[in-house]
Amino acid sequence: MLYTMERKVSKEFGLHAAGADGKMRILFLTVSAMPRPIVAQIHLAAMQHNLARAKACAPGAQAWGVVKANAYGHGLERGMRGFAAADGLALIEPDNAVRLRELGWTKPILLLEGWFDGADLLAMAEHGIQGAVHCIEQVELLERTPLARPIDVHLKMNTGMNRLGFAPAAFAAAHARLRAIAHVGSITLMTHFANADELHHPCITLAEQVRRFNAATAGLPGPRSLCNSAGVLHMPELGALLATDWIRPGIMLYGGTPGGKSAEEFGLRPTMTLTSELIGVQEIAAGDYVGYGSRFQASQAMRIGVVACGYADGYPRHAPVDTPVLVDGVRTRIVGRVSMDMLTVDLTDVPQARVGSQVVLWGEGLPIDEVAAAAGTIGYELMCALAPRVRVVEA
Amino acid sequence: MLYTMERKVSKEFGLHAAGADGKMRILFLTVSAMPRPIVAQIHLAAMQHNLARAKACAPGAQAWGVVKANAYGHGLERGMRGFAAADGLALIEPDNAVRLRELGWTKPILLLEGWFDGADLLAMAEHGIQGAVHCIEQVELLERTPLARPIDVHLKMNTGMNRLGFAPAAFAAAHARLRAIAHVGSITLMTHFANADELHHPCITLAEQVRRFNAATAGLPGPRSLCNSAGVLHMPELGALLATDWIRPGIMLYGGTPGGKSAEEFGLRPTMTLTSELIGVQEIAAGDYVGYGSRFQASQAMRIGVVACGYADGYPRHAPVDTPVLVDGVRTRIVGRVSMDMLTVDLTDVPQARVGSQVVLWGEGLPIDEVAAAAGTIGYELMCALAPRVRVVEA
Repeated sequence: MLYTMERKVSKEFGLHAAGADGKMRILFLTVSAMPRPIVAQIHLAAMQHNLARAKACAPGAQAWGVVKANAYGHGLERGMRGFAAADGLALIEPDNAVRLRELGWTKPILLLEGWFDGADLLAMAEHGIQGAVHCIEQVELLERTPLARPIDVHLKMNTGMNRLGFAPAAFAAAHARLRAIAHVGSITLMTHFANADELHHPCITLAEQVRRFNAATAGLPGPRSLCNSAGVLHMPELGALLATDWIRPGIMLYGGTPGGKSAEEFGLRPTMTLTSELIGVQEIAAGDYVGYGSRFQASQAMRIGVVACGYADGYPRHAPVDTPVLVDGVRTRIVGRVSMDMLTVDLTDVPQARVGSQVVLWGEGLPIDEVAAAAGTIGYELMCALAPRVRVVEA
Repeated sequence: MLYTMERKVSKEFGLHAAGADGKMRILFLTVSAMPRPIVAQIHLAAMQHNLARAKACAPGAQAWGVVKANAYGHGLERGMRGFAAADGLALIEPDNAVRLRELGWTKPILLLEGWFDGADLLAMAEHGIQGAVHCIEQVELLERTPLARPIDVHLKMNTGMNRLGFAPAAFAAAHARLRAIAHVGSITLMTHFANADELHHPCITLAEQVRRFNAATAGLPGPRSLCNSAGVLHMPELGALLATDWIRPGIMLYGGTPGGKSAEEFGLRPTMTLTSELIGVQEIAAGDYVGYGSRFQASQAMRIGVVACGYADGYPRHAPVDTPVLVDGVRTRIVGRVSMDMLTVDLTDVPQARVGSQVVLWGEGLPIDEVAAAAGTIGYELMCALAPRVRVVEA
């Protein structure tokens, strides 16, 4: 019996082999159920482009490509390939740092939060993985854990973010204590900016954080590691203030803005396009309600499209009515509440839309930052939230 | 050389084997990097309890255990074991429906959104998987896809949710068309409630949806399938109005409330406890700011704890200051913005807290619904968002 596949080609549809008579035969025929029509396309060329953009902002510096959180939802291995030109890869998950070595990454690897555990230290020494050291407990653990090979560390200062890092007044002492440990190699000096997207932030400015960093590191040897994406994008205008040996771009590598200007204005390209399809269309009358909680009421007769994408795919549940979406290439809007597996859109301006019409949730043609802003969040969160049930392809 | 593991036992620490002299030797010694200290504990006994609670609400009905979205973040296979007493399992992912058969589930399986594709239909027939049919395009595809074995279908009516389903006026015709297809087995009649958590909802009530359903199904044969969790929990008080052959509880099985009352008041137990640890402590002064955007300012000197849990773990970024959290068993609150891999908490009332102190984000001792409400969402979203990088254990 022959089946015609609808719209997509089945992933596995038979194994052809030549029999004794030389004729091709189908040895078995399996039909796999398909995943739902939601697909995340990852654009490796855009990842390469964005990394080059970061490096161009900091001509004298080396660049860590940040691949934490499964490369911001893009897949660790894809992050490794997309950022092959980076001088090193940085992340926070010790198990994934080892995984990068297993995948064949030979350049430096940095754990941005360092070690959580003695076992992490042993693995770091074994695999040549560097790590941040941000608190005295980590120093103590390092002191009492004998390592066969020295590890390179990045001593982190808290210059106003008040999250991780040594206070400026405690920094030199921590540095001296690290230098006294036989199995410590190089010591890089690092800090992290709280408000680098807004140069004149009313609370604590980038300039003030740099000033504190410079004051507390005066006379200390070792390379400097300063800038997140927001900092990197300010380097051309701020010049000497942001001179650093290493930069640590994250979100900009994935085509998202860290704030201040749009990704396009920063010359960044989207690296993830999330698409799906309409799986239902409803003709509703004036006064009808849509979705849970009946949060949308139609003011006139209209067509509603049901998209195979919900918050369990990683789409933000808090995306309100009017959040933008493309249907058949036409910009329209969400109506009603996002539910677990579906969301509903206004088809008024897309009269040709029908079951099977293509929907773009974010990416090429619809910046992820616009969707994030409508939902009161940032592109980072949307990328990272991409659920395992979403099929990922490279485009 | 002997290493003492800190706090946790390494996953893989050597292979012991007897040598020719009968003595045990360690053949190799590998040290694996550990995952970060964030862990989701899944409580299988609570899953069993909650299913029993659902069945007790509907003594005459059979129960689908809903395991879509990776069993609401709990893991498909754990869903299968936790709901072993269900009469069937329901989900929306065709590939995972087949996976349930491969895992050994022999009772009914229902695809709540039916087939997206011809390949899905073939797999459904092959594996004995039932499916909802909610639009005419699905009927047409079923008509032109010859199946070796009949499939059982669930004809869905749109009674006011305006998401999936046939309009009441089109329902009988769709039913007749399905009955005319040789490879259709049984036809169950189903609908879905928009506002079942609030019996006197000002827009569209559960009673009105049931009235529309009853009117449009009058005279049609076949079992009825009506209630989501909110509906199930109202069955004892609503009696005959909600008489149904099958119920479809989801969130209540995972110990979350569908609204109206708290999970505890409904007699439900938490099925997921998300824990982590403090990885840093900061002593800050009056006037200091915490985190990105400097969104929190200390009014007096205080201690801040940094928790290894961020939005890339699935914790909601939109959780504001004062969202509850337990540190060393003491209830305290988030301060500052949730970042990708960390969040910061007020340690004022937990003077003994230090690096390594246990933190409960939600679950036993801190209802997930409380955390969700503080963040302006629902427990469903938090469970489903649990990221793959979080280690999951059964407790």
